[in-house]
Amino acid sequence: MSTDRQSSPPTPAATPAGVDAVVADNNRHDSLRPLAWQGNALRVLDQRRLPVDVAYLDCSTAGQVAQAITDLAVRGAPAIGIAGAYGVVLAAQAALAAGDEDPAALDPAFDLLERARPTAVNLAWALARMRAEARRVGRIDPVGLLALAQTIQADDLAANRRMGDLGAALIEPGSGVLTHCNTGSLATAGFGTALGVVRAAWAQQRLSAVFASETRPWLQGARLTAWELQQDHIPVSLIVDSAGAHLMSTGRVQWLVVGADRIAANGDTANKIGTLQLAIAARHHGVRVMVVAPSSTVDLAMADGAGIDIELRDGAEVTHLGGQPTAAAVTAWNPVFDVTPATLIDAIVTEHGVVRPPFGPGLRAAPAGR
Amino acid sequence: MSTDRQSSPPTPAATPAGVDAVVADNNRHDSLRPLAWQGNALRVLDQRRLPVDVAYLDCSTAGQVAQAITDLAVRGAPAIGIAGAYGVVLAAQAALAAGDEDPAALDPAFDLLERARPTAVNLAWALARMRAEARRVGRIDPVGLLALAQTIQADDLAANRRMGDLGAALIEPGSGVLTHCNTGSLATAGFGTALGVVRAAWAQQRLSAVFASETRPWLQGARLTAWELQQDHIPVSLIVDSAGAHLMSTGRVQWLVVGADRIAANGDTANKIGTLQLAIAARHHGVRVMVVAPSSTVDLAMADGAGIDIELRDGAEVTHLGGQPTAAAVTAWNPVFDVTPATLIDAIVTEHGVVRPPFGPGLRAAPAGR
Repeated sequence: MSTDRQSSPPTPAATPAGVDAVVADNNRHDSLRPLAWQGNALRVLDQRRLPVDVAYLDCSTAGQVAQAITDLAVRGAPAIGIAGAYGVVLAAQAALAAGDEDPAALDPAFDLLERARPTAVNLAWALARMRAEARRVGRIDPVGLLALAQTIQADDLAANRRMGDLGAALIEPGSGVLTHCNTGSLATAGFGTALGVVRAAWAQQRLSAVFASETRPWLQGARLTAWELQQDHIPVSLIVDSAGAHLMSTGRVQWLVVGADRIAANGDTANKIGTLQLAIAARHHGVRVMVVAPSSTVDLAMADGAGIDIELRDGAEVTHLGGQPTAAAVTAWNPVFDVTPATLIDAIVTEHGVVRPPFGPGLRAAPAGR
Repeated sequence: MSTDRQSSPPTPAATPAGVDAVVADNNRHDSLRPLAWQGNALRVLDQRRLPVDVAYLDCSTAGQVAQAITDLAVRGAPAIGIAGAYGVVLAAQAALAAGDEDPAALDPAFDLLERARPTAVNLAWALARMRAEARRVGRIDPVGLLALAQTIQADDLAANRRMGDLGAALIEPGSGVLTHCNTGSLATAGFGTALGVVRAAWAQQRLSAVFASETRPWLQGARLTAWELQQDHIPVSLIVDSAGAHLMSTGRVQWLVVGADRIAANGDTANKIGTLQLAIAARHHGVRVMVVAPSSTVDLAMADGAGIDIELRDGAEVTHLGGQPTAAAVTAWNPVFDVTPATLIDAIVTEHGVVRPPFGPGLRAAPAGR
């Protein structure tokens, strides 16, 4: 699997014969990969330095992978899960090189990687799969572990491609879209979730315009989404988060397309702060709202959004940028997620299909998670 | 008139005997003045350097005042009108010192000041009053012109105090408020419009909490409003503009209190970008919306908001901060105002009183402008 855009830039000519037109067009707008396996190292696109520098970290130990996760060089739940899996492969290679064939030799690496981002569900899930495989085989087997890591990565990409095509099919040709935060190639194995829908819809020539909100306080929209779309030759207009409603009032967008951090059983959706405000503005203006997320995001054990804890982070993220103060020295209230009620959502797209309101039956019918 | 907080900090002890309790409390939270007349110079609080530095410019010529306006050292429509009036006084002092008593000697200064911010209605209005006074007297009379400039300044402060009390009376004790952009002492002669309502309501102990949105792209909320409230001992929590709806969903705010750049005859209100989005979120959550602006902001010749032109500014204001790029090198769409429909507004407060929906009759009944 070559996922390094520098060594193997995808082109239409590289599309396998017999592939259909939609997939071929998707390839034209899907050049970015946050992670690339190099045989004895994991190459990580350092997202902290984007968009100013396009720089890579070559991680040749599990410890280096854990550090890259902790330091946010790689971010986005699916992407850090994949990085963690490759970290285990590196630990297995090192153990075997040292003559150790006991799977218990991997335990320190598992511990290190699990602690890299303690609240990341996808990371824990990917590491649990790797640990189960190591135990099943009963000896250190880097080749088998590599195959599993590559499967996790390929499955994520395939799910994103599938969600992209499902979501794009909902968008009438000539529509404009607005997206929020970064849900793209950089956050996943590739292609993205909500941004995958934007990629697929653009490839199918359905879109008149793509708008991205800058997504304060971290500016993921300004730094990452805008950069991704530019790299993949999809024209984008950046707006301040405040301008969403005014944009909608001009009639230039017909869909708000966003990701999700957690979806309750009734469809209530936790996502990046600002999603709720945009969804309310969308309903006010007759703009439809599409949530795009893998089925692993659906939490059937949570009846509705009232049970979702909203993480409050340090106010300094609001009052400072790049270490410099950008505000008076006051308290900032910094919730980083909000909950959009299901009543404001028109469609939830997972890799299993499109669910329409009322969402409960459709979400329950889909296979549970990955 | 001493308006320099350094030379004459207001204290409760300085309140004139016999003044009522509400006014006395207002004084406790009204220490800031953007402009202070020094006898032969206008001292300008340099708002470009806030909140990092509290620095002043002493302008001793009309040209220096014009430059301070052009360079945004002083901003806010009422404040730049007052600055312009004092610029004329400086020109009159200079002419008289040069032995020139012909009012035509002021024409170059009027031209310079009028061009300082060509689209600023308040500046043109203040200069027209000064020019009419100079013509009426028929000779260079710095004392008379100074009296008029001081009247313009004092009238603005009195109107803001009046709006503050009228607006505060609408707010039930125990309420939380959210405000947007900067409509405070820094933008006016003092006290502010929407922020004057916050000051008055705080002085009357009606407020459980004050939230200010940072107001991208210029961060007037983060840099100016938060600083103002901090200086005047009113606790404030800063939020990103995206967090307004989530804040409302928690039940912590009962009023959104904002200013206006122009109010159409039906109550449709143009104000800083983001006001519309917050007003829609407010209606969704049962939070009420108060617009606070002097009657000069009401444009009875404009039937509704559809006729209001929305200024588009350079996208670099979105993609850069302090000259440094904060985003990928993409196009940014940067409208700086939006129009909130009258149907989303619960009260419009001018110095003449409170107008409730439907706004047309009440806005027409008030004395036209200043």
